[in-house]
Amino acid sequence: MTTRTLHDDAVVIDGLIISRWSREVFQEMHDGGLTAANCTCSVWEGFRDTMVNITQWQRWFRDHGDLITQVHTAEDIARARREGKVGIILGWQNTSALEDRVEFVELFKRLGVGVMQLTYNTQNLVGSGCWESHDAGLSDFGRDVIDEMNRVGVLVDLSHVGAATSRDAVEHSVRPVSYTHCCPTGLKDYPRNKTDEELRRIADKGGFVGVATYPPFLPWGDGTTVDHCVEVFEYVINVVGEDAVGIGTDFTQDQDVAFFEWLRADKGHGRVLVPGKARVPKLPAGLDRMRDFPNLTAAMERRGWSEPRIRKVLGENWLRMLREVWGA
Amino acid sequence: MTTRTLHDDAVVIDGLIISRWSREVFQEMHDGGLTAANCTCSVWEGFRDTMVNITQWQRWFRDHGDLITQVHTAEDIARARREGKVGIILGWQNTSALEDRVEFVELFKRLGVGVMQLTYNTQNLVGSGCWESHDAGLSDFGRDVIDEMNRVGVLVDLSHVGAATSRDAVEHSVRPVSYTHCCPTGLKDYPRNKTDEELRRIADKGGFVGVATYPPFLPWGDGTTVDHCVEVFEYVINVVGEDAVGIGTDFTQDQDVAFFEWLRADKGHGRVLVPGKARVPKLPAGLDRMRDFPNLTAAMERRGWSEPRIRKVLGENWLRMLREVWGA
Repeated sequence: MTTRTLHDDAVVIDGLIISRWSREVFQEMHDGGLTAANCTCSVWEGFRDTMVNITQWQRWFRDHGDLITQVHTAEDIARARREGKVGIILGWQNTSALEDRVEFVELFKRLGVGVMQLTYNTQNLVGSGCWESHDAGLSDFGRDVIDEMNRVGVLVDLSHVGAATSRDAVEHSVRPVSYTHCCPTGLKDYPRNKTDEELRRIADKGGFVGVATYPPFLPWGDGTTVDHCVEVFEYVINVVGEDAVGIGTDFTQDQDVAFFEWLRADKGHGRVLVPGKARVPKLPAGLDRMRDFPNLTAAMERRGWSEPRIRKVLGENWLRMLREVWGA
Repeated sequence: MTTRTLHDDAVVIDGLIISRWSREVFQEMHDGGLTAANCTCSVWEGFRDTMVNITQWQRWFRDHGDLITQVHTAEDIARARREGKVGIILGWQNTSALEDRVEFVELFKRLGVGVMQLTYNTQNLVGSGCWESHDAGLSDFGRDVIDEMNRVGVLVDLSHVGAATSRDAVEHSVRPVSYTHCCPTGLKDYPRNKTDEELRRIADKGGFVGVATYPPFLPWGDGTTVDHCVEVFEYVINVVGEDAVGIGTDFTQDQDVAFFEWLRADKGHGRVLVPGKARVPKLPAGLDRMRDFPNLTAAMERRGWSEPRIRKVLGENWLRMLREVWGA
């Protein structure tokens, strides 16, 4: 007879996974005890190719219905948990799939896209990314897109968004916004990371910070361990409080170097703005595969966190946030 | 026996026509003595719909080959003149047709697109338009697009482009750039018009100003006459000199109110940034149809312009400019 651990019993939600999807990956998400996750289905793709990606997900929901189930609402996350399946929230890391139509926000929401990052690294019709030379702020079109995301209940994600565009978005949105996956500048000075002021600005509007466990954003680099990851969570909790923090690993399991090259080039085929050479990053020791999620909970316990704090950070905060932004 | 007038004998080039194309319109362009014109084939359209528009032009070149002929080079303009046909330069008022691919510039150049306006009124991937709330300047993608236009020989048009983006573009381009169709702020303070400083900035880099005869941009409004139009030419000549000026009427012959509504809405279906209600503008008395081009030449003569100045402004300046930018 096995004892149920805190991890087994907790709601565990990952705010950002961009792994190479396969039955093996779904199996690991399931075995790792994930209740739900925001799974990227569009980065540089336009309208049509994002639709193609969504049809691929529909196929996966049919073929792997024993492991995963699609999430449209917060209630779907509770249902996934009851059924012992991983709830899949489809999410975007860019709004390129909207092309020039605000109306497409609702269309994709109906297909299950619950999280949209406004820009990915560079400039698009909505605003600028964190690697664009000059961040122009939110465009008029971008304001309309946020209005529509607010109206239909899609979470605004600012993780890869530039500082000025992010500031404009926090101000403009009437619903809380998020960094689904980020690390603090206070630990490593890096354009993709967020300053304490930026973290606070989101939290002050009721928003949310998903903490990434992605070594390139962290001071320990390839030497990052699961215990270091808990230190990152603590840093962010110290800035925004333990109710505004969750997981946003940025897991890239099974992706190859060609994928990282595609991610780094502007619009997937243009100028490379991110410095350095693309490589497959070494993920944290103890948390380098998705079946290892229980190790993260164990590290939180080792660190002496209270059970309520662990439960909040593992998933309860995310669930409350999604319920608020998505509505009924 | 009829006497050949100066107009009959001159090279006459119109830097911007966006009429509702038909055999009747081509007939008027022919009868009005046009040697060549930059004819808009994309405003809000994306890649595919712009390609559809180009196939429509290919059909018109076949069906109306007695009146019009396609222009790819400056030599094609000379050939059109010898053949007594109107040379059609395909042009864009936006770069939305590039979508996110710099490489498409060359592809469209090969299909005859010789002029590309960087933005139309609002923000796109390249930069901001003159009606966008905040002009962000040229994006990194925009710089790459201009580099490619320079490389393959496409004229950069800044007529509807915002002030900051225009300034960046003039600085960045290694080839002369243009306003193909604009009016001076000195005559009417209007966001779409250009200040003396802006006109000079383009001319100082060897660039070009096509003067629009579009009453909504002019102080006389519906009362504008062909003689007023000559005053506008004189104003611009006084700012930039008579070698940097040509025609860019912005003719909208036979367009209906639905067309103007489509033009004014962001991306053809979004928020309306241009103030006022869409209506079909009353074109200048004496120059309200394209068969009336000889009246413009006559008005220049009435005004006492020298024959060399008239010839330059009617088309010789345009021809020299296009030869320089397009190359051999």
